[in-house]
Amino acid sequence: MHAYRSHTCADLDASTVGQTVRLAGWVHRVRDHGGVLFIDLRDHYGMTQVLCDPDSPVFAEVEKVRAEWCVQIDGEVKARAPELVNPKIPTGEIEVYIRGIDVLGRSAELPLQVFGDQEYPEETRLRYRFLDLRRQHLHDNIVLRSDVVRDLRQRMWDQGFNEFQTPIITASSPEGARDFLVPSRLHPGKFYALPQAPQQFKQLIMVSGFDKYFQIAPCFRDEDPRADRSPTDFYQLDLEMSFVTQDDVFDAIQPVVQGCFERFGKGRKVDTVWPQISYADAALWYGTDKPDLRNPIKMQVVSEHFRGSGFAIFAKLLEQEGTEIRAIPAPGGGSRKFCDRMNAFAQKEGLPGMGYIFWREGESGIEAAGPLAKNIGPERTEAIRQQLGLGKGDAAFFLGGKPSSFERVAARARVQIGEELDLVDRDRFAFAWIVDFPMYEADEETGEIDFSHNPFSMPQGGLEALDGDPLKVLGWQYDLACNGYELVSGAIRNHKPEIMFKAFEIAGYGEDEVRKRFGGMVNAFQYGAPPHGGCAAGIDRMVMLLADEQNIREVIMFPMNQRAEDLMMGAPSEPSNEQLRELRLRVLPPEE
Amino acid sequence: MHAYRSHTCADLDASTVGQTVRLAGWVHRVRDHGGVLFIDLRDHYGMTQVLCDPDSPVFAEVEKVRAEWCVQIDGEVKARAPELVNPKIPTGEIEVYIRGIDVLGRSAELPLQVFGDQEYPEETRLRYRFLDLRRQHLHDNIVLRSDVVRDLRQRMWDQGFNEFQTPIITASSPEGARDFLVPSRLHPGKFYALPQAPQQFKQLIMVSGFDKYFQIAPCFRDEDPRADRSPTDFYQLDLEMSFVTQDDVFDAIQPVVQGCFERFGKGRKVDTVWPQISYADAALWYGTDKPDLRNPIKMQVVSEHFRGSGFAIFAKLLEQEGTEIRAIPAPGGGSRKFCDRMNAFAQKEGLPGMGYIFWREGESGIEAAGPLAKNIGPERTEAIRQQLGLGKGDAAFFLGGKPSSFERVAARARVQIGEELDLVDRDRFAFAWIVDFPMYEADEETGEIDFSHNPFSMPQGGLEALDGDPLKVLGWQYDLACNGYELVSGAIRNHKPEIMFKAFEIAGYGEDEVRKRFGGMVNAFQYGAPPHGGCAAGIDRMVMLLADEQNIREVIMFPMNQRAEDLMMGAPSEPSNEQLRELRLRVLPPEE
Repeated sequence: MHAYRSHTCADLDASTVGQTVRLAGWVHRVRDHGGVLFIDLRDHYGMTQVLCDPDSPVFAEVEKVRAEWCVQIDGEVKARAPELVNPKIPTGEIEVYIRGIDVLGRSAELPLQVFGDQEYPEETRLRYRFLDLRRQHLHDNIVLRSDVVRDLRQRMWDQGFNEFQTPIITASSPEGARDFLVPSRLHPGKFYALPQAPQQFKQLIMVSGFDKYFQIAPCFRDEDPRADRSPTDFYQLDLEMSFVTQDDVFDAIQPVVQGCFERFGKGRKVDTVWPQISYADAALWYGTDKPDLRNPIKMQVVSEHFRGSGFAIFAKLLEQEGTEIRAIPAPGGGSRKFCDRMNAFAQKEGLPGMGYIFWREGESGIEAAGPLAKNIGPERTEAIRQQLGLGKGDAAFFLGGKPSSFERVAARARVQIGEELDLVDRDRFAFAWIVDFPMYEADEETGEIDFSHNPFSMPQGGLEALDGDPLKVLGWQYDLACNGYELVSGAIRNHKPEIMFKAFEIAGYGEDEVRKRFGGMVNAFQYGAPPHGGCAAGIDRMVMLLADEQNIREVIMFPMNQRAEDLMMGAPSEPSNEQLRELRLRVLPPEE
Repeated sequence: MHAYRSHTCADLDASTVGQTVRLAGWVHRVRDHGGVLFIDLRDHYGMTQVLCDPDSPVFAEVEKVRAEWCVQIDGEVKARAPELVNPKIPTGEIEVYIRGIDVLGRSAELPLQVFGDQEYPEETRLRYRFLDLRRQHLHDNIVLRSDVVRDLRQRMWDQGFNEFQTPIITASSPEGARDFLVPSRLHPGKFYALPQAPQQFKQLIMVSGFDKYFQIAPCFRDEDPRADRSPTDFYQLDLEMSFVTQDDVFDAIQPVVQGCFERFGKGRKVDTVWPQISYADAALWYGTDKPDLRNPIKMQVVSEHFRGSGFAIFAKLLEQEGTEIRAIPAPGGGSRKFCDRMNAFAQKEGLPGMGYIFWREGESGIEAAGPLAKNIGPERTEAIRQQLGLGKGDAAFFLGGKPSSFERVAARARVQIGEELDLVDRDRFAFAWIVDFPMYEADEETGEIDFSHNPFSMPQGGLEALDGDPLKVLGWQYDLACNGYELVSGAIRNHKPEIMFKAFEIAGYGEDEVRKRFGGMVNAFQYGAPPHGGCAAGIDRMVMLLADEQNIREVIMFPMNQRAEDLMMGAPSEPSNEQLRELRLRVLPPEE
């Protein structure tokens, strides 16, 4: 017989009754039923009930074991009495009578119980992560993550992509966030950086003549802590393709993400049609470039109905350039109580309030109510109702001004309305490509032009487009939104040095600056660069959605806490003087 | 038609003749045959011959293109004349007549030709890696590496292993080499470290109740440069299993490595029987713990034949304790010329020389020759010949003293003899497990006891074994040797805190020290640690063997040079003052 086990704790069933077996695992819990000791023995695979009666020669030893001791038992498989069968677990038909026991690893008193649902402070959970990971829920999340990554890889390979590893100790490549630096011992005073993303390398892979690259890539950003992201690193499914258009990238990644969600979504509906929505439309309809399409509410421009109307606030607003009035339809929200609550919500979010109209049963059929309706009169009110396709029992909310002043609140109000009216289909994954991002934006105060998103994207219309108004230039750039999160981001790249220099010049970066910052890539583009594009999908986010978790630490095996500390391993820690001396570094005292 | 291509450069064959197609790729070379321009158009997949005659409307444009420009052509597929068919490439039956051309990416003058076999200094190759990678040989190596990694993953999954990613920004974990440090911005003065290997984490994964872990893991060591290793990082197939013995680990990894070599070994023979050789036997037979078993030579102890013999040097040596005489048999080496050359080889390696005997045709059959034979006389000489199983035309070399004084030279002599006599089967991968490593070794000068290999291994015999002579304690520790390289290394771990503390105490490390160095893991072992073990296989080394390369930079996409610099990306580089200020670091001037 094997030194430790003949079966796992999920293997035994009725067909094995009568066999002498050896099991190894952890003592999930011990119960004493009339002098007979029942142990739920647990391993990675499952649970088996083992028991020991007082006349067993090893009873005294079995009596000593405690929760989470790692033990090995020899015993005989017996059928449970029919009324004691547990149909919920694969081993529920049997139990094992202990004939011998060997303690493989004792346990000190537990700072965190594995059995049961007791909650613990995050500090405790992270310090004793190895115990927390034995709990079913977290254990399952981590296995899910592993399965998801495997599945993504498989789908990429099946599509003819090659996985290539790119350097982790490399050059600083400023892409918006802070680099983690790594001091060089061989070149004191010089530093490597950990990659914020393999952006430059994947583009270099295309210039090197490879055709379809992917990588489950670790990315490192020294960012200030936030609940839903890891303070040090995260993983992305990174891909890049040569000789492709935007639609080719979509056609490559959609089956991968969709297939993965279908497989691991636990029966939740996965949209198969992924609409392409322009950045401008997304802003208008949803107030955000990562809309949750499970919420059916779509905002609309209703400025014309208020221009010169009796509602003076909006009428006046509309006299200023760049202003408009938008409506948030709220099907089923047709009560004053609800409308007042939403108005209060907007005030809490910092707006003066949200005007509203709601429609109710009146004397002669449908009747519009609310102060706004009175101010603008029945004709305009009815025109609004018809434009929004609303009816009795529905409501609409109105926000006015420059869109930038209210868009964020509008987006949140849309979410709030959708949730309160229960319009959101929770058991669904709804995807949309957001496309046609503007290349540039102007600083609201200074008017200075800067890149609004990725500076490496190809402008739509190429070099010529850059001769016109920069604020009208759109990029071949896209995001995938899923249930209100940005799941994927990508672009068709700017592979022509002359267009790249021009694009950077518009944003105020001279050729020298570009060469200094992105020299490796820019240099390579001079030697026959192919058109190429790609995207990156957030693995942590994907697993969070599939596992229905809100906290990224629930889907990472050994996460940092929010202060970027590893409590289990004790990182970061003080270096030795010898280490600092070898790196020729001195740590300065804190500034007064 | 697609914006860039209707086919890849490997797609077209006789069945596509007559079609109008679009191809995109790089101009491999241009030839002018009587005014007709022939272009070999190359992409990731293959090569297609395209051509343009002088009356084509785009001839003038085609005439401008140069090597490594990235172009797109529209054209018509035509069959080649039978005498012009090239059976070596899939597109050899056709050629494409250019009707339109679009230059996608021009190239500046090439610092490195992609076409042809010209050699370039490594400096040039690394600086223009993106061009070097377009060359077939390197391109193929990188794809091979990608395929190997995929294959290894697949085999691990098929065996029920889960891949888990372990932290990259983590705690310093001294395992022999230097750590790369990462200064913390949020905790100035403290540093993270990049993992030298996921050793502690994979053991923690087992303590967390997972059963079979693997990872294609990046490992980081700040090591001084050497030709056959990367100065910063390398990849290993890392695995760990719970409730296993040494043989279980062997049974898990052998099919993975063997299967991978069979698949990618290009027909070279792959041994299916992997002998287990004790560390002591390996030292005796091969002088090394990573023997090349393709070389059939096995050394033997022949001390008895020299004890009290007429060969005074050896006879005297044997009077000292701990000495012995070993023979290196050399089948087919039976000539004075060869023997003298080997003797000179040993002298060059720092030994006084190697005595030898060789056997040749004599008057009455076989005859022993060489000075040694004369000194010890025919009886002893014949006994040696019989022990070594040698005959006419063979030779044997002799080394004497304390084994530690000659073992390394003996190993090299064995290799040299095997090569010179052409005894080595080059088209073969020969594997052997080296087992039973000693846990400890004594410093030759001070006599101090220290770990000889991995301090985390379980001593054979457990706690009791540690009560005896430490130098006699063997560990459950193993290496896999392949063709003279260490390909895999691993151990059954010491999972019991009391045995671990005792093992470290013997090597002079107190409990405090152990807790300080390996606190994360040692702490976890107090809470029901399972017996576990595993190993790690070197990916870079494996690909080097399969690709038959001697230099690790031939199997890495973007390697550092030997001075740990990335010439393409310009790493390492000087940090900004702002970065140093945020980290509260100052770089000190070089010491005078």
